[in-house]
Amino acid sequence: MAIRIGILGYGNLGKGVECAVRHNPDMELAAVFTRRDPASLELLTEGVKVYAAEDAPAKKDEIDVMILCGGSATDLPKQTPDMAKYFNVVDSFDTHARIPEHFDAVDEAAKNSGHVGIISVGWDPGMFSLNRLYANAVLPGGKDYTFWGKGVSQGHSDAIRRIEGVKDARQYTIPIDSALEAVRSGSNPELSIRQKHTRECFVVAEKGADQDKIRETILHMPNYFADYDTTVHFISEEELRRDHAGIPHGGFVIRSGKTGWEDEHSHVIEYSLKLDSNPEFTSSVLAAYARAAYRLHQEGQSGCKSVFDIAPAYLSALDGAALRKHLL
Amino acid sequence: MAIRIGILGYGNLGKGVECAVRHNPDMELAAVFTRRDPASLELLTEGVKVYAAEDAPAKKDEIDVMILCGGSATDLPKQTPDMAKYFNVVDSFDTHARIPEHFDAVDEAAKNSGHVGIISVGWDPGMFSLNRLYANAVLPGGKDYTFWGKGVSQGHSDAIRRIEGVKDARQYTIPIDSALEAVRSGSNPELSIRQKHTRECFVVAEKGADQDKIRETILHMPNYFADYDTTVHFISEEELRRDHAGIPHGGFVIRSGKTGWEDEHSHVIEYSLKLDSNPEFTSSVLAAYARAAYRLHQEGQSGCKSVFDIAPAYLSALDGAALRKHLL
Repeated sequence: MAIRIGILGYGNLGKGVECAVRHNPDMELAAVFTRRDPASLELLTEGVKVYAAEDAPAKKDEIDVMILCGGSATDLPKQTPDMAKYFNVVDSFDTHARIPEHFDAVDEAAKNSGHVGIISVGWDPGMFSLNRLYANAVLPGGKDYTFWGKGVSQGHSDAIRRIEGVKDARQYTIPIDSALEAVRSGSNPELSIRQKHTRECFVVAEKGADQDKIRETILHMPNYFADYDTTVHFISEEELRRDHAGIPHGGFVIRSGKTGWEDEHSHVIEYSLKLDSNPEFTSSVLAAYARAAYRLHQEGQSGCKSVFDIAPAYLSALDGAALRKHLL
Repeated sequence: MAIRIGILGYGNLGKGVECAVRHNPDMELAAVFTRRDPASLELLTEGVKVYAAEDAPAKKDEIDVMILCGGSATDLPKQTPDMAKYFNVVDSFDTHARIPEHFDAVDEAAKNSGHVGIISVGWDPGMFSLNRLYANAVLPGGKDYTFWGKGVSQGHSDAIRRIEGVKDARQYTIPIDSALEAVRSGSNPELSIRQKHTRECFVVAEKGADQDKIRETILHMPNYFADYDTTVHFISEEELRRDHAGIPHGGFVIRSGKTGWEDEHSHVIEYSLKLDSNPEFTSSVLAAYARAAYRLHQEGQSGCKSVFDIAPAYLSALDGAALRKHLL
């Protein structure tokens, strides 16, 4: 019997999960839940029903794993523990500083209800975190580097859109090649924020807006842009739609470290992602961890887990013998 | 209390484990076991004793994890199940085709004695296998590529040394850049053996040996060289010692795959290693999995496991809360 997946929240991420379920023959989409009017949603999958978010608990016997596709700022801190009362849950909570408290909240709810909750699943946190952990464990004497991009940062794009006179904007985070090369050389360089990434902004200004003022506001925005070498391009709405419609992203996790009795040998471990669609890749990781949540629950486990707590074999549709034969 | 590590076999790998233990403050080297005369070994670590291999069982209460540093051809198939009767064990068994039977033999011994055995630990099998599994689980619609090098292949170097008239040799496996680039483009190319790697051989011939004949023998050696573009250089013994003393290796695991309702988006996941010392890196992975074996045994688990069966958190000296805070 296929693993019955529920989706709560049908934005880019929810649609991505719907597509990921289609790529995993051992899963089926059971239902989608939304805070919008259910009648207003048109799914890609035929024959699947859309319900109001508040009706989710009533469907608890029809869904094996609920994948939460809301945002980390306000949705998930409430939704994940709430839904863990009724379902095994998986989310992509990505506010790094608040992970400990989110973990505790989901752990309490999931333990009380006997479900499994897996939080902070995606690529960072997620696959990048895994690679940081493995590399740290293998090379304890070393140094970590994470680079992001080239890709669209939604947070930075939103920050530009909030500036007076800006109609729309798209911001790309770009790792600096010379910094990547320095890290790959194994020389363990100290790199400032400015030395690691540049930021490139494509801005559609309102008619008659003061472009110089918009540019200055961007360049001096603290945290977001002031510490970076930032380029601002003003383009038309048509150009934005034509050339910047995608949501690519990616990045690099690199650790270099030493081995040998006198640290005489250097090693470089590098993991990188080049993603055409940030939300669809994140959704694909969510789907794999939904499989793990289902299996762990079947084994009688409960409580909150992160990607660190889950043996890789739980992510695959293949059994242990097949994995050892084909992938080990 | 530190995890007490035993080493069986004190070649390059065993010495590497000794160095890795020094880099992990929660471990200590308890003893080294050898089939040579124990008095003939001089360890790097002060105050640690060397015993004959057959005395290992008598030390079973003094060692938490025995790391087996023998070869896969004849040592490990016998040693790992043998030692699993007395110890938690970790090995780097790398004969891919025989992993299923090795797993079964170690599983039986370890279950009977209540120990944990972790086999096929290192980088391939090992870290490369993990990356194949994760990438397969996340991108079920995709294609895997593994490239090795640039690095020294011991097996190929040995094959050359067995040729009449050859005094010594070193063989490098080199991935072909254009193949790597084609894979990274996401185009999922079909690549022949010859298109993926070249082989470069540095050969010291015996005085008066027929170099043309040696070259021809290498170039036409089935399995080892015949399917590759191979270059043979004759050099002096001094040059071999001076320029080819290291044992570097590394490689790339790349998976590209599609997501989206109509497979409209491409993604590339790449993991790579650049290693100054193949045995020392392998040893570092063995040490991390020794920590996992110790902890799993403390939890009451037993039987054989591969890297697929072990949650990443078990590899780290940090606890769950610290991992979530610093690496997630």
